Amino acid sequence: MKRGQIGSKGIYEQLKIQILDKTYSPGDRLPSSRALADELGVSRTTVTVAYEQLMAEGFISARPGARAQVMPLALPVAIRKGSDRRKQAVSFSDFAKSIVEMAEPPAKMKCPVADFRYGALAVTDFPVNPWKKALGMALGSRRETLSYDDPQGNLRLRTALQAYLWRSKAIQCSAEQILIVSGSQQGLDLCSRILLTPEDRFVIENPCYVMAMNTFAASGAKPVSIDVDAEGMQTSALPGVKARLAYVTPSHQFPLGSVMGVARRMELLQWASVNNAFVVEDDYDSEYRYDIKPVPSLYGLRDESQVIYLGTVSKTLAPFLRIGYMVIPKDLIAVFRKAKMLADRHSSLLEQEAFAEFLESGQYERHIRRIRRKNSQRRDVLVETLQRRFSDRIEIQGDNAGLHIVVWLKDLPEKMEPYFLESAQKSGVGVYSVKRLYTSKSVQKPRCVGLVMGYSALTEKQIVAGVDVLYKVVSS
Amino acid sequence: MKRGQIGSKGIYEQLKIQILDKTYSPGDRLPSSRALADELGVSRTTVTVAYEQLMAEGFISARPGARAQVMPLALPVAIRKGSDRRKQAVSFSDFAKSIVEMAEPPAKMKCPVADFRYGALAVTDFPVNPWKKALGMALGSRRETLSYDDPQGNLRLRTALQAYLWRSKAIQCSAEQILIVSGSQQGLDLCSRILLTPEDRFVIENPCYVMAMNTFAASGAKPVSIDVDAEGMQTSALPGVKARLAYVTPSHQFPLGSVMGVARRMELLQWASVNNAFVVEDDYDSEYRYDIKPVPSLYGLRDESQVIYLGTVSKTLAPFLRIGYMVIPKDLIAVFRKAKMLADRHSSLLEQEAFAEFLESGQYERHIRRIRRKNSQRRDVLVETLQRRFSDRIEIQGDNAGLHIVVWLKDLPEKMEPYFLESAQKSGVGVYSVKRLYTSKSVQKPRCVGLVMGYSALTEKQIVAGVDVLYKVVSS
Repeated sequence: MKRGQIGSKGIYEQLKIQILDKTYSPGDRLPSSRALADELGVSRTTVTVAYEQLMAEGFISARPGARAQVMPLALPVAIRKGSDRRKQAVSFSDFAKSIVEMAEPPAKMKCPVADFRYGALAVTDFPVNPWKKALGMALGSRRETLSYDDPQGNLRLRTALQAYLWRSKAIQCSAEQILIVSGSQQGLDLCSRILLTPEDRFVIENPCYVMAMNTFAASGAKPVSIDVDAEGMQTSALPGVKARLAYVTPSHQFPLGSVMGVARRMELLQWASVNNAFVVEDDYDSEYRYDIKPVPSLYGLRDESQVIYLGTVSKTLAPFLRIGYMVIPKDLIAVFRKAKMLADRHSSLLEQEAFAEFLESGQYERHIRRIRRKNSQRRDVLVETLQRRFSDRIEIQGDNAGLHIVVWLKDLPEKMEPYFLESAQKSGVGVYSVKRLYTSKSVQKPRCVGLVMGYSALTEKQIVAGVDVLYKVVSS
Repeated sequence: MKRGQIGSKGIYEQLKIQILDKTYSPGDRLPSSRALADELGVSRTTVTVAYEQLMAEGFISARPGARAQVMPLALPVAIRKGSDRRKQAVSFSDFAKSIVEMAEPPAKMKCPVADFRYGALAVTDFPVNPWKKALGMALGSRRETLSYDDPQGNLRLRTALQAYLWRSKAIQCSAEQILIVSGSQQGLDLCSRILLTPEDRFVIENPCYVMAMNTFAASGAKPVSIDVDAEGMQTSALPGVKARLAYVTPSHQFPLGSVMGVARRMELLQWASVNNAFVVEDDYDSEYRYDIKPVPSLYGLRDESQVIYLGTVSKTLAPFLRIGYMVIPKDLIAVFRKAKMLADRHSSLLEQEAFAEFLESGQYERHIRRIRRKNSQRRDVLVETLQRRFSDRIEIQGDNAGLHIVVWLKDLPEKMEPYFLESAQKSGVGVYSVKRLYTSKSVQKPRCVGLVMGYSALTEKQIVAGVDVLYKVVSS
């Protein structure tokens, strides 16, 4: 060991290395603390502190009056070799095997003109100061201790949500049926874990929200894809299908944007009732309905025992907050509550309390009205610019609601799509294919280029400039 | 319908009910909007808005000039009957079946004198203003859009943690090996889902942290309990045990408080290496080490390919924040990242950024030093008061570290425990049994009353008063 400015941490580290690499072998005695202190030119206390740490960790033993002695150690082969390579392959669970090939959402690209990526919101739309104030109030809440909260979700938030869901979505439920989740993704995952087994099948829309598909498939259950048309999932295909669960986006089908009419809703519920199946209703963006009021959920049709409802603040406040909520049939509450506790104990309490404050004060609904207007304007600009530029060369779907539209470029054949997406991106515009949202065996797969165009993160200028670039790319 | 102050929402609701209960049957025509408006004494627009909503939801159809007509509906039996009772039992997944009987942690009790519940922190120990400021900075961060963040965790936080883990725990890892989780509970759950199958076994300490036991058992894998003594898990029992995973709390065994010496650490790692098993190291409270420096993690012993490290802010900031972090062997990063994305997309970004700010500014370590001093004082008061009151009638374990101690009441036989706990509670003091942390088949099960006593949420006055009450209860 070098003389000089070494401290007890340094002495400790070096002795540890010397014990591990057998410079000192088991049974060897270390120098006395006085001798080592002299040798290193440090105080005896400095050495003593290092020895105490080594003793506490079991590297050495010491009796009063005797010199410290190195303890016997069983040295694993890997440690002796200093290697961190694995000798045998890791054996994973079926869950791990099924997700390892799962595609992540497309990576964020540099799009200096406009990125029509779906799901992002504009930074200027977030209520920074009110949310900061609400978080501050949550931090200042009176509590007896800092401890875990209710796994099912903060009671104040569940009570506020119960009233909100009745006001805004005609959902009649008790606060006891509400489960607060860390984003609706966790809700999907809990449904998959609790309700599906590898022997089961689940019904999914085609095209669909791919993360939902992946989440249910991770259970080992097999998908049954049912095509979507202008009225949502074609429920006439349901009778005869044996499945444990059906995942639907009835208020605003993702991605095509259709609203499921009440006749099909009835057919879906009837199928679920006959088959003892659950309907998972993902109400991811029904706050954005531009022509009429938000469409009520399947709960509005009163059969509560088959429907699991999922809502989120990802499209109203920000995706990065990770707050979602579920309404759960009464006889499933106990098991969902326990699964949630195992999954992450409960969701962030401060964000739950801030959201409760937003709901109670009416700020949440005011905020939604404000950004609904802004998104309605963005949508108008996008649709008008597309129509002005492309006129009847395109077909637009799903523009009555939500934060995205689907655009079919009727005279661009499907096979040109990779080239088109790449050219657009080279010109600074991010656009995304509808095609990858279709499950592979679909008969309905589109024959021309189709785009999912999100607009909620863009300014009107960016929207116009982006469409102009797309027009130039198509024309060339 | 009644005349009067009805709006379009009321008209819509009432017509919907009349269609659902067949007052209007499919094919029936509704009154013209003019006629209904006259009848109700409202404007024609009010009626038109209601009709448009019913049309959008598929209840009625309308052609220009003709009266709206009720659409055919398939009415599920359950809806017709207005029933929400399930006719068949729900068939759950194995996961759901295995958790449905799982015990929740003991409910919070009213303890006016003192609640020695483990895991809670004092409200006065939370850095309210600094955390508020850090959250405010996170809210004000420059971003291009509001969108999802990296599933593995915010890069700024992972970078700050990488440096912190090296400084404070001698863990050498890259930021790429760090995964941010929603509390260490989520880390346990991910390990269970990814690494365990129903055919596997897992090694667990006896007594143990019961939530970890439950989480691993939820995979269907079977526990192998290994007894704990004053040096931690008795690793001499490991050779010959076939298991996929071992869960340990080596820095401060929960609940008994022992530190695992380096010889046993080596044996554990050697066993893992030979058996191709993983060691999940739960470092839940090593920040609170009162005699020496925090004990380095198993990572300090260099064999990184078998160790999964878990840390948390639950014991340093607050349990309700839900931030934890894992260090993961390089060849497992991809699958953990995907599992985390499926579980909840990513953890709350604002709390991640606030924690990064705390780490970068040095506030986190200053805060830990401050509350370590406070908890050291609380511990001193608790231990001294217990010793003064009970002298040699008790034995205290695990008081060198952490936020709890274990107290054995040597002359109170085990069978008196339920009566003792109840009497204490009636006298206003919450105390909790060690016994329920032992797995049922233990040979080492204690023969006298044993308590886990947490002190980090209490004032010194409460601690003294609580011990005084316990003494009276024991004496009577």
